[in-house]
Amino acid sequence: MTDSRTTLADLRRRVVAFVAARDWQPFHTPKNLSTAIAIEAAELLEHFQWLSDAQVAEALQDPQELAAIADELADVTIYVLSLANALDVDVSAAVLGKLERNEQRFPVEEWRGRA
Amino acid sequence: MTDSRTTLADLRRRVVAFVAARDWQPFHTPKNLSTAIAIEAAELLEHFQWLSDAQVAEALQDPQELAAIADELADVTIYVLSLANALDVDVSAAVLGKLERNEQRFPVEEWRGRA
Amino acid sequence: MTDSRTTLADLRRRVVAFVAARDWQPFHTPKNLSTAIAIEAAELLEHFQWLSDAQVAEALQDPQELAAIADELADVTIYVLSLANALDVDVSAAVLGKLERNEQRFPVEEWRGRA
Amino acid sequence: MTDSRTTLADLRRRVVAFVAARDWQPFHTPKNLSTAIAIEAAELLEHFQWLSDAQVAEALQDPQELAAIADELADVTIYVLSLANALDVDVSAAVLGKLERNEQRFPVEEWRGRA
Repeated sequence: MTDSRTTLADLRRRVVAFVAARDWQPFHTPKNLSTAIAIEAAELLEHFQWLSDAQVAEALQDPQELAAIADELADVTIYVLSLANALDVDVSAAVLGKLERNEQRFPVEEWRGRA
Repeated sequence: MTDSRTTLADLRRRVVAFVAARDWQPFHTPKNLSTAIAIEAAELLEHFQWLSDAQVAEALQDPQELAAIADELADVTIYVLSLANALDVDVSAAVLGKLERNEQRFPVEEWRGRA
Repeated sequence: MTDSRTTLADLRRRVVAFVAARDWQPFHTPKNLSTAIAIEAAELLEHFQWLSDAQVAEALQDPQELAAIADELADVTIYVLSLANALDVDVSAAVLGKLERNEQRFPVEEWRGRA
Repeated sequence: MTDSRTTLADLRRRVVAFVAARDWQPFHTPKNLSTAIAIEAAELLEHFQWLSDAQVAEALQDPQELAAIADELADVTIYVLSLANALDVDVSAAVLGKLERNEQRFPVEEWRGRA
């Protein structure tokens, strides 16, 4: 399975099935899932915590470290999708809507090269 | 656009285009993007901070509040996709790989109904 | 040593000494320390992640669990004090200044019993 | 009031009084307070999010920006103290205990200059 052929709905269904098979829906409240996203985000950040950008680039040469980081990224994503399921929110629509508003907020001519 | 027809690659391309149009790649280092994910996750969590689950359920009846929460979920997702772009990681493969390992770690018969 | 006889300056000196003995000042930049605070805060939060308030109350009966939580609280505090050292900020003055402004923002008569 | 004359107990009493005057103890559960610490930590981190260490140094020259950062540091500290109150944990003892264990974990001769 790869990103070019996998829809958001495909991934969401896999997360629904995992949660439902364990009867974990009562734990997957919006508040708990938002907490889980924040915790997994911190575990992801931990990989970069004391490193300069140059040291990060070097660390990413190590396939095991890259896999560990991808694993934390997966954890964040899984909880994001589970929260979308719990809230019945369309992720694609939310992302595209936000990008469109950001196009207005950060016009290219004004923001090119500025953070 | 909806989750049933949108691939991960579709969304990733939209994020790439937004970042590239502003020459923001130098800011979108793995460390900065992980920091951004953590910050947006906290903004999402803020919506639930002092509420009980019952109060959350009530708050979600308000379409404006639900839209604001979907908006924060979009922010987290956008930075997740941008980090996947920066690391050249396949999100679907990472998510499915993690779900498979979690199938082993949390066997259904042992974990049903337990958090 | 106990809170009734320990000043903020006492604790800050202990943190300074620990960091200086290892020549860790170059790593203890404001950005890295803020990142460390966020990561330790998430490790603290992890103890409560899937528990209801009743389950938390039960978990806190276990002295080992309480000690583990106090340990995470200590980690957050150590990085807060190290950041105060790095910024040369007086913690007591900052806390009291903030409490005074919050007195204005949340008048007792209006906010009693409301979150 | 300054850190050299203010004890942890002094600050804790001020936080107790603020919370009690508003009858906010029911909201100040360990779980909610840990969530609040994580959220305030993210607001602190936001000040450094897209900046290099050199840009942070420059930003800190601005007294208003430094005050805003001290303000976020105060928010984290206030919730740390409120959690210590809720758990009846001695902050000084927890911090010193942790520093002592870290002395063992990170011997000076081995860790000098290494993160």
